Amino acid sequence: MYKKINQQDLAYFSAFISAERLISGEAIVEEYAKDELGTVKNFPELVIKALSAEEISKIMRYCNENKIPVTVRGSGTGLVGGCVPLEGGIVLETTLMDQILELDEENLVLTVEPGVLLMDIASYIEPKGYFYAPDPGEKSATIGGNIATNAGGMRAVKYGVTRDWVLALEVVLPNGEITQFGRKVVKDTTGFSLKNLIIGSEGTLAIVTKAYLKLIPRPAHAISLLVPFKTLEDGIDSVPALLQSDTGPTAIEFFGRATVEFAETFLGKKFPDADYQAYILLTFDGIDEEDVKRKYQRAAELCLDKLGAEDVLIVDTDERKSDVWDARGAFLEAIKASTTAMDECDVVVPRAKVNDFIRFTYELAKKYDIRIPSFGHAGDGNLHIYICKDDLSDEDFARKLDAVFAELYAKAKECGGLVSGEHGIGYAKKEYMRELLGETQVNLMRGIKKVFDPNNILNPGKII
Amino acid sequence: MYKKINQQDLAYFSAFISAERLISGEAIVEEYAKDELGTVKNFPELVIKALSAEEISKIMRYCNENKIPVTVRGSGTGLVGGCVPLEGGIVLETTLMDQILELDEENLVLTVEPGVLLMDIASYIEPKGYFYAPDPGEKSATIGGNIATNAGGMRAVKYGVTRDWVLALEVVLPNGEITQFGRKVVKDTTGFSLKNLIIGSEGTLAIVTKAYLKLIPRPAHAISLLVPFKTLEDGIDSVPALLQSDTGPTAIEFFGRATVEFAETFLGKKFPDADYQAYILLTFDGIDEEDVKRKYQRAAELCLDKLGAEDVLIVDTDERKSDVWDARGAFLEAIKASTTAMDECDVVVPRAKVNDFIRFTYELAKKYDIRIPSFGHAGDGNLHIYICKDDLSDEDFARKLDAVFAELYAKAKECGGLVSGEHGIGYAKKEYMRELLGETQVNLMRGIKKVFDPNNILNPGKII
Repeated sequence: MYKKINQQDLAYFSAFISAERLISGEAIVEEYAKDELGTVKNFPELVIKALSAEEISKIMRYCNENKIPVTVRGSGTGLVGGCVPLEGGIVLETTLMDQILELDEENLVLTVEPGVLLMDIASYIEPKGYFYAPDPGEKSATIGGNIATNAGGMRAVKYGVTRDWVLALEVVLPNGEITQFGRKVVKDTTGFSLKNLIIGSEGTLAIVTKAYLKLIPRPAHAISLLVPFKTLEDGIDSVPALLQSDTGPTAIEFFGRATVEFAETFLGKKFPDADYQAYILLTFDGIDEEDVKRKYQRAAELCLDKLGAEDVLIVDTDERKSDVWDARGAFLEAIKASTTAMDECDVVVPRAKVNDFIRFTYELAKKYDIRIPSFGHAGDGNLHIYICKDDLSDEDFARKLDAVFAELYAKAKECGGLVSGEHGIGYAKKEYMRELLGETQVNLMRGIKKVFDPNNILNPGKII
Repeated sequence: MYKKINQQDLAYFSAFISAERLISGEAIVEEYAKDELGTVKNFPELVIKALSAEEISKIMRYCNENKIPVTVRGSGTGLVGGCVPLEGGIVLETTLMDQILELDEENLVLTVEPGVLLMDIASYIEPKGYFYAPDPGEKSATIGGNIATNAGGMRAVKYGVTRDWVLALEVVLPNGEITQFGRKVVKDTTGFSLKNLIIGSEGTLAIVTKAYLKLIPRPAHAISLLVPFKTLEDGIDSVPALLQSDTGPTAIEFFGRATVEFAETFLGKKFPDADYQAYILLTFDGIDEEDVKRKYQRAAELCLDKLGAEDVLIVDTDERKSDVWDARGAFLEAIKASTTAMDECDVVVPRAKVNDFIRFTYELAKKYDIRIPSFGHAGDGNLHIYICKDDLSDEDFARKLDAVFAELYAKAKECGGLVSGEHGIGYAKKEYMRELLGETQVNLMRGIKKVFDPNNILNPGKII
């Protein structure tokens, strides 16, 4: 149905894209066929490293007329196959569009190209006293990828997710038109929110070529508390009380003994105070040191006096900070390193259901005799659950994976949760989304997709 | 094109809706033909006071099959004709669906029916220690109306707008299907965000029958500073510095001498310290009294030492609070009372452009010899500008209004702003939206409307 790219097409692109930014045939490395998790693989026919909205516009106009599929790719750090070119065609890489275009201090707006990395935003604005709050674990992800998946991160408890920090987007539509959704303003009720439709649409509706991000003054002070509990259940049970309290935590993470051990092995260094079964990691921040201190002291008292914490460890020295945060940052990589292959489940459930859900993963692990480590964001109910292949055969793993996924997502539905909190649907979770949301909603999404992309050339086969 | 309601239709509805909730013909009062501003008027053929999603589902299925237009109405406090039944048909009033269904303290979620009033939410949850932050001026608006217009309000500076506080929505689609967008979760990247498409769609895509609202612990302490400046320009110029500072204001309002005088006349009481030309009204809040105190003290110093304030008046006694906030709350009504008729412009511009824009309204007032009072949210660039008829003839007013609106919205476009910050597009601002956003975006919206409502029966003639 789609047109295969031939010499004539290549000649067309070569006329306005320099050779080093056009990779075709055998020269395409495997990286472009997969994402971070590699659960689905397919090679593109052509990789284009784009430089500007105008160039992308020209590419899209041509591809739309010729029915050539286009899949946008940032750093490729996704976990659901979102950037895998299922139908071949073009992978449009945005990593060369990596300019920070403007820091507008009067309006507190940062304008960036889509290929700017999350860590580059932080290192550019934080020394100047500004703050972009979303904090997904993968700092080498591009902002374009973060917008495509509405990435969340740890600070969502206090600051919300990527969606809450995007004021406006310049996009190229599938037909090549360049337009801007939203403006440098905080309030907007000017028609349907097309900007919010693009955020989280995983590159299926339009290509983001510029993002206007909201900034706030940087909270100069932050401190974490590592709070061990007798059991993970006790730890997670403490979360509602912490959120109802006057302590205003920025982040509430949970992890158990097993996850800590993976990180220790992976990093080759010991976790501080590693003799507990379970931990809650709390962070508090603020512009005012006194204020932060009062918040974490009240939280510490609450944990010790009322919530049954075993201890409260203030993560204040540089050494302890690096020990704790290096471990927390390494969980995904560490679990990945502990097994031959894995797939993940990024459900989000109401906070009060986190314990139910984690307990259910233990039951599944036993039932299917498969390892299912997990960790997650206790403060917002977003869980990261990994199903490990270990020494299973490909067939056995595939079979068990199907069964485990089906049970996990059915449980998420039962708990009033959703298929994905921050990683997206991509290719891997399509069927589970349909099962959970139902045909009516998927049909609305299909209709919307058709309005934006009648020829279905933009990232075909994803989400719906 | 639409079917007119006849005896047979009435008989159908009477079979499951009791007589006191069905109003037809002469019994329909004028209220149902207009909204708060009354700039556009049309009578419905039938008013139904709905009681449940199931009932609405039945009504919609019938109306969809028979092509009877349906316009949803809450309290009717809108300002852009959004709830006016342009094509006649049915006005579906939601004010009887006024139940607070659940306060889920573990997950910090309040579940309400659409007819619950904003003030009822506050009085229900605040004594229990919880807080729903959006704070639109009109407290007798329904939450359904707030969601339809993505209402903003004063606290948007710190807390965002309605969109940021809606976790999930149960809706009835135009074909009568009942479905739920979103869940009781803070993170969600499970397909296109249909929930965000409904918010701000002014009742054109679906009928909200249940809303799940995010809550936070109530900031028990709040204080306002009334800061007079020599000129309104000086006052507005102080805003970027305040927002960049370590003072974290909840709200930053501005108003000038003239607006204060309208309020004095309207309320029949004096504004405190009324001898200044211009004011900035700042609010600070927090869970911790000490923290709030340090914030407002730093802000007061900043205003006096660096920003050229004439004085800083702490609004702390009950008397002064009522004097200041009664005045602020009465601005819209007071301006309305000062003239024979008026229309309004709810533009939003980048904060740094507020002065430019206000200055432009002065020029227009002179150029067209018409009174254009204004006030607004300096902290988020959302301005409320009123064009007053006074003793102009209907024809002269209409002519001047057209010319003034055209210039105002052209200026908003030039400033990088948008047609509406929080009141919506409705019927009155359609053409201006099209002019500002362009045909491409309006066509995308038209396409989306068709996906949800192929027979165009839900609030036809609005937005697009």
